[in-house]
Amino acid sequence: MTTGVTAAKGFRAAGVAAGIKASGGPDLALVVNDGPSRAAAGVFTANRVKAAPVLWSQQVLKAGEVTAVVLNSGGANACTGPLGFQDTHATAEKVAAVLGHSAAEVAVCSTGLIGERLPMDAVLAGVEKAAAALSAEGGADAARAIMTTDTVPKEAVAHGAGFTVGGMAKGAGMLAPALATMLCVLTTDADVSAENLDRALRAATAATFDRVDSDGCMSTNDTVLLLASGASGVRPPYEEFAQAVHEVCASLARQLVADAEGATKEVAIEVIHAVSEADALEVGRACARSNLLKCAIFGQDPNWGRVLAAVGTTRAAFEPDQLAVAINGVWVCRNGTFAEDRAKVDMSGREVRITVDLNAGDATATIWTNDLTHDYVHENSAYST
Amino acid sequence: MTTGVTAAKGFRAAGVAAGIKASGGPDLALVVNDGPSRAAAGVFTANRVKAAPVLWSQQVLKAGEVTAVVLNSGGANACTGPLGFQDTHATAEKVAAVLGHSAAEVAVCSTGLIGERLPMDAVLAGVEKAAAALSAEGGADAARAIMTTDTVPKEAVAHGAGFTVGGMAKGAGMLAPALATMLCVLTTDADVSAENLDRALRAATAATFDRVDSDGCMSTNDTVLLLASGASGVRPPYEEFAQAVHEVCASLARQLVADAEGATKEVAIEVIHAVSEADALEVGRACARSNLLKCAIFGQDPNWGRVLAAVGTTRAAFEPDQLAVAINGVWVCRNGTFAEDRAKVDMSGREVRITVDLNAGDATATIWTNDLTHDYVHENSAYST
Repeated sequence: MTTGVTAAKGFRAAGVAAGIKASGGPDLALVVNDGPSRAAAGVFTANRVKAAPVLWSQQVLKAGEVTAVVLNSGGANACTGPLGFQDTHATAEKVAAVLGHSAAEVAVCSTGLIGERLPMDAVLAGVEKAAAALSAEGGADAARAIMTTDTVPKEAVAHGAGFTVGGMAKGAGMLAPALATMLCVLTTDADVSAENLDRALRAATAATFDRVDSDGCMSTNDTVLLLASGASGVRPPYEEFAQAVHEVCASLARQLVADAEGATKEVAIEVIHAVSEADALEVGRACARSNLLKCAIFGQDPNWGRVLAAVGTTRAAFEPDQLAVAINGVWVCRNGTFAEDRAKVDMSGREVRITVDLNAGDATATIWTNDLTHDYVHENSAYST
Repeated sequence: MTTGVTAAKGFRAAGVAAGIKASGGPDLALVVNDGPSRAAAGVFTANRVKAAPVLWSQQVLKAGEVTAVVLNSGGANACTGPLGFQDTHATAEKVAAVLGHSAAEVAVCSTGLIGERLPMDAVLAGVEKAAAALSAEGGADAARAIMTTDTVPKEAVAHGAGFTVGGMAKGAGMLAPALATMLCVLTTDADVSAENLDRALRAATAATFDRVDSDGCMSTNDTVLLLASGASGVRPPYEEFAQAVHEVCASLARQLVADAEGATKEVAIEVIHAVSEADALEVGRACARSNLLKCAIFGQDPNWGRVLAAVGTTRAAFEPDQLAVAINGVWVCRNGTFAEDRAKVDMSGREVRITVDLNAGDATATIWTNDLTHDYVHENSAYST
């Protein structure tokens, strides 16, 4: 059995070195849906400054059918003006010509530096090379070709009764709500309508990728696509299918957090006893965006005061003297003030769980984030990305 | 002529080492208004988790009269519960007893680590020591005693026709809108009503301290006080007085940015041609809060793509293909895409000016921020502050 985007029947994929990256590493991936269905759904960045491939793919997805996805690393093709859009169009046309399909069914994703044109000779030649390499075992190569500062490829698979959902993702920095900075392609051999693909995808991303906030920055290129081939012949109940999509998204989202740029900690901010899920999410995000708190986590300092300072910036329902905070299970703050000895907290492991009890209601939500480290500063100051 | 809070007639101040800080450095300041007026105004943190001294001083300021301000570094007295509030009360009572006034006219400010009780024996003995040291030349000592991670004391003075406004401030991290993390005491010998003091102070802080966003974090302790002695006998026109207050606040705000924790750059984000000042501020703050942009500035990388990515997260009125960005005067982005050669940009100096042209209206605003550096991570991970 193959992995990632080729785990489901009806898909072929490839990842090749097209010469877009200066490093000479793999930088172009192609995923092809051989059907019989070509139903598809997509979710895109909420950033108003959208890269050319996002603008293109949004149009493609309106028709609800995708035959192929071409993805490149080594350049975001964002803020490149009308010529950049023409480059995306030309890439889709090339894929269509090579595969014998219509460009209107070819989604395009790009990731890398903003504000520079892609080397189109390399991209177009890379499309031919990738098409020649397409295989039902190509998922792993595709996952590798979309990496930028990722240190490991990210793939996941979930199985339902007679059907499979698989996927790949990239993303290491610029991870924030309304999609982490990322490209993600999910495939399934279930027979699902475009409408239900859209519904399942939106539900899954809202509860997974949208709850990752690595560095508070929102990308111009975020794209999550879900393609259904129907090749299994199985038409699963919606809830069962949605659950499988959720599982794959949750796995990929955790892999993004685990590989975030320069991070030494994977941090779950769990907000409990909120009046609403929206309140819980707002509080979780405020904590995830506190640079002071993130530095303290890097320093393994159970600095709950910085948690309260972040909670206090939100509009969530709570009384300051009712707040409680646990770090890795030790309730260092109760009733808005110090409680258990902070020396009891062990933050030496890679996973850190901060629980914020608002003491106001019954809702809960968890946001995943990372610490703020020297390596984050180094990676994002020493290189243009 | 003396500086800071004793530049204006009618004020005495002192700064002493009370033994609150482990370092043994100066950590307690006292500012006394000898009148004849005791009119005062205050602006406090918008954080809903407010330190005990903030809750106390807000009550004091409701009556519009302040005789003395006692300030300590070495501990924020935040998230310390009812006992922490009693500590603040006891400190004010001690000042009142020593000076022969009412505690209801004594404002209290604290700064330092959140979540720990103050060493009250040291604080109360320090109040006596400071009262004994009060002098009309004590401004500089007071400014030094409120420093935490500040590397230099911050003072400023402005002169009007026959009157003076002076002030001191501290603050180096946790600087964000709705007050930078800071304590600030302003004094004037002008004869101004509490109502006009409040009006002038709110106008000045909204256009100065509120536009500093060093690290996006909002403190539990921010306090800006303005005390008028009326000792000059001059009752200046409101606009002239407000201008002097603005000047002092602007100077202190710039000093905060210049001394921000671990910063190597002072960055002005100037947003022009916005539809409204609110739009300009929202865009400026979004840029000031982009960790990716702040790392690029540290790396002297004119990465305008990260500017556009930040602008795109706002609700401000603009068209993506109408955006322009200049870095230190070089228009590296026009019409939403690359323009002048980024190699022309010189970011080697300490000051960096990023101009964002929204091409949408006539409003302008500038937000001051800093770069994100290894030293910021170090200072905020290696020590509890």
